[in-house]
Amino acid sequence: MSEEKRTEIGDLGEFGLIDKISEEVRIYHPETVKGIGDDAAVFDMGDSLMVISTDMLLEGVHFDLSYMPLQHLGYKIVAVNVSDIAAMNATPKQITVNIGLSNRFSLEAVELLYEGVRAACEAFKVDLVGGDTTASQAGLVLSVTVTGTVPKDQITYRSEAKKGDILCVTGDLGAAYVGLQVLAREKQEFLGNPDMQPKLDQYSYVVGRQLRPVARMDIIHELADKQIKPTSMIDVSDGLASEVFHLCKQSGLGAAIYEDKLPIDKEAYETAAEFSLDPNMCALNGGEDYELLFTISQEDFEKIKNHADIHTIGYMQEKEKGKALVTRGGNVVELQAQGWKHF
Amino acid sequence: MSEEKRTEIGDLGEFGLIDKISEEVRIYHPETVKGIGDDAAVFDMGDSLMVISTDMLLEGVHFDLSYMPLQHLGYKIVAVNVSDIAAMNATPKQITVNIGLSNRFSLEAVELLYEGVRAACEAFKVDLVGGDTTASQAGLVLSVTVTGTVPKDQITYRSEAKKGDILCVTGDLGAAYVGLQVLAREKQEFLGNPDMQPKLDQYSYVVGRQLRPVARMDIIHELADKQIKPTSMIDVSDGLASEVFHLCKQSGLGAAIYEDKLPIDKEAYETAAEFSLDPNMCALNGGEDYELLFTISQEDFEKIKNHADIHTIGYMQEKEKGKALVTRGGNVVELQAQGWKHF
Repeated sequence: MSEEKRTEIGDLGEFGLIDKISEEVRIYHPETVKGIGDDAAVFDMGDSLMVISTDMLLEGVHFDLSYMPLQHLGYKIVAVNVSDIAAMNATPKQITVNIGLSNRFSLEAVELLYEGVRAACEAFKVDLVGGDTTASQAGLVLSVTVTGTVPKDQITYRSEAKKGDILCVTGDLGAAYVGLQVLAREKQEFLGNPDMQPKLDQYSYVVGRQLRPVARMDIIHELADKQIKPTSMIDVSDGLASEVFHLCKQSGLGAAIYEDKLPIDKEAYETAAEFSLDPNMCALNGGEDYELLFTISQEDFEKIKNHADIHTIGYMQEKEKGKALVTRGGNVVELQAQGWKHF
Repeated sequence: MSEEKRTEIGDLGEFGLIDKISEEVRIYHPETVKGIGDDAAVFDMGDSLMVISTDMLLEGVHFDLSYMPLQHLGYKIVAVNVSDIAAMNATPKQITVNIGLSNRFSLEAVELLYEGVRAACEAFKVDLVGGDTTASQAGLVLSVTVTGTVPKDQITYRSEAKKGDILCVTGDLGAAYVGLQVLAREKQEFLGNPDMQPKLDQYSYVVGRQLRPVARMDIIHELADKQIKPTSMIDVSDGLASEVFHLCKQSGLGAAIYEDKLPIDKEAYETAAEFSLDPNMCALNGGEDYELLFTISQEDFEKIKNHADIHTIGYMQEKEKGKALVTRGGNVVELQAQGWKHF
């Protein structure tokens, strides 16, 4: 047997692996406007652009059915994919759901899952048009693809932010991560004492953020109404810091973020403290918020400055100035992106 | 604990499950021309139609890496999805590949897989534009989505066959199934004696059909050149009989198939005999041929009758006459669709 070279994927990380895969990809169709490297790929259909995004969720890696009810899981897989379409400033249109099922799942379980899928399809107005159903030897496997459309002059990429643009984020950050901690603790307590009743009332907001994320299509529609086209946009799935890194890298810029501007919900703040977690770190690196991070030019600031759900958290600056976090104490430190590591 | 109703998915089957899921689906966008129920979903993009199809392949269910080299697997997942686009009479344009990897897979293994993906993308001229890469606790998980485009007047559905139309199938049938038997036998022999060398030379055609299927885009281009628009079309993934059932059901018709017209390769025929398998049954129910089954109106018969790779195997008839198989002996029996059962 020959000694073959073996490089662990864990050493490379998800983004390193994607870079490797992208390196040798060839594009054959001039209509492919954008391939790998944004929230969605883009295809020129003549009258308008078609965007497409896809995600895979595996039991034991992305979700734990001991605290994720199937309806919520169904809702969540749709919402997180619609969120990618929103991040292109596009409107979701069609969705396909592939599902692999081990034999511990009954028809009734599958129906619960699809109840959630249908509820999200209704909430975000997207048509369930297909999918593959198959047996699995390894629990529940879900893979979802969403398409959307957007007029040619309205699409937003990660790469078009300009120096001086204002960084905005919607909603609040960190709550989904804090909610996950609550659910994990409840699971441990339940394993220790199966007769116990879950005590989740005082954590309803953070748990809801984990179980039932919302794709911010409402913001996309509002921005269109206000005639604001973000200069760049991404959805917050891996944590704010990681997403700021993506915008900076692809726009060839640096950024400055103000810690005291990070929107953190009161319940998330208090629950983080209960777990001895720094709420700012939860907001910066927690992940799964599915809010939108975007940049606007300064002239659009007046149009959003009083919006209750859009928060200005910093600005884009020269690449040489790096990615800075201005702490509550006024110190300037380098922003760290921890991101979501599942490898 | 309450007694909850539990219906096994195995009792329902894949098509029963899909019917259940489809029942309550709502469509919100008038541009959705076709949802669940054909080889691909269809979306009206103004100038032309966009089609989308998706498939999931799981290790241990759809493939066995002990005899499926990773390059071939990468090629196959692209080819089988392109085949669905071909079955809509469309041209493939973009593809996304989601991949879940357990830690036994190295970067080098992933690169082999993508070598196959890229080779198929080149062969079928489709742009790899995205995908999700994630850790898996359960071996290799693959999910692929392909989009394509087709002029509005050229799309083919399963539902538009007419009484008297001629049933055609491309290439030959059953070889992929026979090839799978050869590979499974080799695996057993290898497990019994790990020093043995595989003896696959005399089975190269059937093994190749299993490991490296071809999507028949060549036929799609030829039909266009000959100005033939099939009245209905489907790709042969679950076995010819099962696909004839789909065309009949969706077109509201019956069909007659002639056993002596089934195209079976000589090597497949002989190898089937070696395994004591009926070659006709392999052709009718084997699956994974990825040939095209389509109907044409009788006036188009002249244009294809001398085509070496298009075989006329029967015709569509009134629903009341059922689905008939005319045996070599001249007997008329009811066609049985066994299909691919993985639940």
